[in-house]
Amino acid sequence: MNEIRLFSPATVANVSCGFDVMGFCLDNVGDEMVIRKIDKKGIFISTIEGFDLPKEAELNVAGVSALAMYENLDVDFGFEIEIYKNIKPGSGIGSSAASAVGSVFGMNELIGRPFDKTQLTEFAIKGEALASKCEHADNLAPALFGGFTLVKSISPLQILEIPSPDDLYATIIHPQIEIKTSESRAILPKEVPLNNAIIQWANLGSLVHALHTSDYNLIKSALTDVVVEPYRSQLIPLFTEVKQASLNAGALGAGISGSGPSIFTLSKGLENANKVKDAMQEVYASSSINFDIHVSKINTKGVKIIN
Amino acid sequence: MNEIRLFSPATVANVSCGFDVMGFCLDNVGDEMVIRKIDKKGIFISTIEGFDLPKEAELNVAGVSALAMYENLDVDFGFEIEIYKNIKPGSGIGSSAASAVGSVFGMNELIGRPFDKTQLTEFAIKGEALASKCEHADNLAPALFGGFTLVKSISPLQILEIPSPDDLYATIIHPQIEIKTSESRAILPKEVPLNNAIIQWANLGSLVHALHTSDYNLIKSALTDVVVEPYRSQLIPLFTEVKQASLNAGALGAGISGSGPSIFTLSKGLENANKVKDAMQEVYASSSINFDIHVSKINTKGVKIIN
Repeated sequence: MNEIRLFSPATVANVSCGFDVMGFCLDNVGDEMVIRKIDKKGIFISTIEGFDLPKEAELNVAGVSALAMYENLDVDFGFEIEIYKNIKPGSGIGSSAASAVGSVFGMNELIGRPFDKTQLTEFAIKGEALASKCEHADNLAPALFGGFTLVKSISPLQILEIPSPDDLYATIIHPQIEIKTSESRAILPKEVPLNNAIIQWANLGSLVHALHTSDYNLIKSALTDVVVEPYRSQLIPLFTEVKQASLNAGALGAGISGSGPSIFTLSKGLENANKVKDAMQEVYASSSINFDIHVSKINTKGVKIIN
Repeated sequence: MNEIRLFSPATVANVSCGFDVMGFCLDNVGDEMVIRKIDKKGIFISTIEGFDLPKEAELNVAGVSALAMYENLDVDFGFEIEIYKNIKPGSGIGSSAASAVGSVFGMNELIGRPFDKTQLTEFAIKGEALASKCEHADNLAPALFGGFTLVKSISPLQILEIPSPDDLYATIIHPQIEIKTSESRAILPKEVPLNNAIIQWANLGSLVHALHTSDYNLIKSALTDVVVEPYRSQLIPLFTEVKQASLNAGALGAGISGSGPSIFTLSKGLENANKVKDAMQEVYASSSINFDIHVSKINTKGVKIIN
């Protein structure tokens, strides 16, 4: 096998109470990529469609991840990467993570899987760092492992796969506005009240328990963010209205996807997720802001080979 | 049945990363209590052995809990309470919680269990508040439910039962010094760095996952407290030495039990827990401080009727 086509999924990081550590994987939103073994040594990005991104490997998230892995290989061939992006950079659903994961996953498949998924995440972190200026894995982990993941620590990298209840669906709205990463970082306080931190870890512990026990009511009450959302939600127009409309329509919870501007919700069952979609849509339809909406089952496989 | 004798267990609250929310129950350390239906209406504490505590119901933790429950009963009889305390008040292993839990559990048994365990915890919280000046349930929940518990929230009261791996043992040393509750509270910062809070909730989420999956290695790496221990450990002589000796002897983790001065460790298997006991003992033996040491399996039943 000299060539592979793959689907690299979008992901939702943070998941309300799990700021910086939790994430989950989407099923039907993602990039396609082709990875090809070539005679010439090195990493070469030949095609990028969808968005205007640099093709120089060292300036591209997928390229940097690929180079990080390539440095650990002793081979007399190289890799060509084609990227067909569907996830808009800066949308808050793991666009750079999808690119970073796709290249290392694809290369690994082509050479007989010498690396495990945690090792692949290590390489992909180097690509993510190009986009976000810091090393984190809360989008990478769900894109590679699928389902819900908890990044216990970055150094050493430790990723936990948390079970995903069968009937859990996400609805995500992406308002087409730009939030600068620098701005969404700057708005966060350096210190948080101990009492709020306690509420947050009680909720995260409860969310992990709820996912293990498929307790949808507990998922609902655990999906609360008293630490970050009060700040970052100010940057997202109509956040409060969308959240309230989603909850009214039956969502278990709603919050900021990654650092925004996308807003995610989780619902029990596809029917509810679609009702939430309608409710979200209605809120934004009254504004002048363009938006996309996705409804997706939780993707328990992560990045995968396609034909 | 007009009389009941029960064992009300000691408990470890906080459990390193789970400050204010997690707790677990001990097997062979606890108070005994006798609860008896009597003709005279009201709550009467007739006997307290072991420690010098007030017998007036409204000044006693067990009495206040009992009164909180009694107010919700429409009965023409009362209850007499005998307390045989083995857990020293102020030791940090849930002495007041054991008293609070015993009275309401016993009364409930004598009248046909009209209340569930969460409701019993609500009553017991009133007793705990007498001892600690604030409403919390991180010792009460494991004493009533057994095993590991996570108090998701106090209002509304929501208690989660987290599974307990079969081969998990606790070793607890109680140095006989007094730490004033006011002091152990005052030493805590009102605000914590966001980065530390993130580490703490990553660890708590990991601990809950580890308990669900019986992953002892993960329990080991999750049992870390970067928020509270750096402050409160200063109040406990030889804390660092005991912790290090315990880890060297094979403990999965060590931390402050409740607000101290007791120090708890968790180990895989009784043999390891006993080795940890020897190591802890050796550290304190070189000091002039008296101490008790307990080795206990995790008690998955909680408070129980005995003959």
